[in-house]
Amino acid sequence: MQVGMIGLGKMGYQLSFNLVEKEYKVIATDLNEEVMKKISSEGVETAQTIEELVYKLEKPRTVWMMVPAGEATESVFQKVLSLLEPGDRIIDGGNAHYKESLRRNEECEAKEIYFFDCGTSGGVDGARHGACTMIGGHEGAFKEIEPIFRDLSVENGYLYTGRAGSGHFLKMVHNGIEYGMMQAIAEGFEILEKSPFDYEYEKVARVWNHGSVIRSWLMELMENAFSKDERLEDIKGIMHSSGEGKWTVETALDLQTAAPVIALSLMMRYRSLEDDTFTGKVVAALRNEFGGHAVVKNER
Amino acid sequence: MQVGMIGLGKMGYQLSFNLVEKEYKVIATDLNEEVMKKISSEGVETAQTIEELVYKLEKPRTVWMMVPAGEATESVFQKVLSLLEPGDRIIDGGNAHYKESLRRNEECEAKEIYFFDCGTSGGVDGARHGACTMIGGHEGAFKEIEPIFRDLSVENGYLYTGRAGSGHFLKMVHNGIEYGMMQAIAEGFEILEKSPFDYEYEKVARVWNHGSVIRSWLMELMENAFSKDERLEDIKGIMHSSGEGKWTVETALDLQTAAPVIALSLMMRYRSLEDDTFTGKVVAALRNEFGGHAVVKNER
Repeated sequence: MQVGMIGLGKMGYQLSFNLVEKEYKVIATDLNEEVMKKISSEGVETAQTIEELVYKLEKPRTVWMMVPAGEATESVFQKVLSLLEPGDRIIDGGNAHYKESLRRNEECEAKEIYFFDCGTSGGVDGARHGACTMIGGHEGAFKEIEPIFRDLSVENGYLYTGRAGSGHFLKMVHNGIEYGMMQAIAEGFEILEKSPFDYEYEKVARVWNHGSVIRSWLMELMENAFSKDERLEDIKGIMHSSGEGKWTVETALDLQTAAPVIALSLMMRYRSLEDDTFTGKVVAALRNEFGGHAVVKNER
Repeated sequence: MQVGMIGLGKMGYQLSFNLVEKEYKVIATDLNEEVMKKISSEGVETAQTIEELVYKLEKPRTVWMMVPAGEATESVFQKVLSLLEPGDRIIDGGNAHYKESLRRNEECEAKEIYFFDCGTSGGVDGARHGACTMIGGHEGAFKEIEPIFRDLSVENGYLYTGRAGSGHFLKMVHNGIEYGMMQAIAEGFEILEKSPFDYEYEKVARVWNHGSVIRSWLMELMENAFSKDERLEDIKGIMHSSGEGKWTVETALDLQTAAPVIALSLMMRYRSLEDDTFTGKVVAALRNEFGGHAVVKNER
C-alpha cells in the first residue's frame, strides 16, 4: 500500500519510518531539503513538490498531512484538494480544530474525496514505534485504509470514532484531560516540595508507578525527568500550551458543560507565563486601600 | 517472620492472606467472629483479643494495625502501646492523618517502641496480590522489617520515605493527585457525552490506554466500568470522599501552597452531594433582583 506523507517534522518523519518498516511505500515531501535528503537514505521516496507527490501515487491515492494546525494545514489542504480526484483520500494527522475538520470534510465531499481526521497521541516515540490514533471519517472508506492505522499504532491503539470531526474532537478532549492530570500531578509534587519531609522525587515517582492508584505514563515520564534533575533546578516553571487545552475549554463553554478543573489547569498555565500579575497588583492595592495593609513596592 | 494483624476489614484480610502466602506466620484479630472463622481456615492463626495477639507474638513483636483512621485507630493504638515492650514495632497501615502519626511516633519513642506509618495504595486487589506501600519511621529499625514490605508489595512497589509521618504524608498527597486526575478524566467524558458525536466510551477508554499520553490505571478502571454499563446509567453521579483529599487541601493551606486543581476537585465532590445548592438560589435571586431575570420556582 502507498502513502503520501506531506510534512517531515518530528511526527511526520517518524511516522514515515514507521510505515516503511511495515512495508508501505512512502512518498514524502517537505520544504526542508536537509530532512528530505536524510529520509531518502532510509527507504522513503521523496517528491520535490506536492504536485509531484500526488502524481507519483497510485490511485486511489492516500495523502497524509502532518503539518502544524492552522494556516500550514489549510494551505497544504487546499493544494492537495485541488490535485486529488474522486475516490482519493486525505488524512489530516495533525491537531486541527474539529470544526475545521468538519468544514474540510464538506469541501472534500463536494469533490467526492474522502477526508479523515486523525488524532495522534503518544509523542514522537509513539509515532516511531507505535502511536495511539483516533480517526473520524466515512466508515466504508475507512475500512480500506484501516491497515495503515493498525500498522502505525500499538496493539489496540487505534479507533474509528465515527463521522468526520470525531477523531480530532476526541484527541482534543484527550489533551484537555492531559492538562488536568498534569496539573494534579504537579500540585502534588509542589506540596511535597513545601512539606516538612525530605523526599527523593525520583523514588516517589517510581513507587507511585508500581501498584498505586495513580500509576500512569505521565508519572513514568516524571520518574525519568527527576532521574535527570532531582529537583528540576535546571528548568523554569513556565508552562506553555499549544492550543488543544484552550479548544477543550472553549468547547466545554459552547456545550454549556462544567469542566472547571480542565479550565483551571489551562489558566494556571497562563499564570505561569507571567512573573508578576495585574491581578496581584489590584488585590494588593485594594488591601492597602481598605485596611492599610503594606504593599510590596515595585522597583522601576 | 511473624506479624500480628489487627483489623480484618477488606484491606487487613487481604494483606493477611498475602503474608501467609509469602510464608509469614500471621496472628490476626478482629471484632467480627465470622471473619475470624473464615480466615482461620486459611492458615491464619487468630486471637480473641489484642492482649492474646500480643502475648502470642515472639519478641521483638511486629503489630500491624489495619483499622479505620480516627477513633478506631487511636483506641487500638493505645491498647497496643500499653501492651508492647521496648524494641517492639507498631505499623499503622491505615490512612491516618500524618500529624496523628507524628504524635503517635512520639508516644512510641517515649516507650522505646518503633512506630511506622505505612501508606497503602492499590486497593483490595493490591492488598491481595501486591500493594504499593510508602513507609515512614526509624531507618535502622525499618531495615529489620523491610522484608515484610518487599513481600507485600509489587516489585519496586515499596519505599522507605524518611522519618515518621512521611509515609502517611506521601500517601495523602498521592490521594490528592488521585482526586485531580479522576476529576480531569471525568470532565473529559462529560464533554464527550455532551458532544455532537456518538462515542462508545469503553472503546474510547481502551484506545486511550494503548499508546496515548493519558494511559493510566484509572483509565483502565474506566474501560472496565464502561464495559459493564456503557453510559453509567445504573449509578448516580454522587462523589463521596473519605478524608485524604480534604487533608491534602488543608495541608496545602497550612503550607501556603497553591493547589487549586486538587482543591477544586474536592469541592466538585461536595457539590455532587447536593441536588440543589444555596449558591444557585443566591445567584438566581440576584439576577432576578437586578435584571428581572426569571427564576425557576421551587415546588414545596
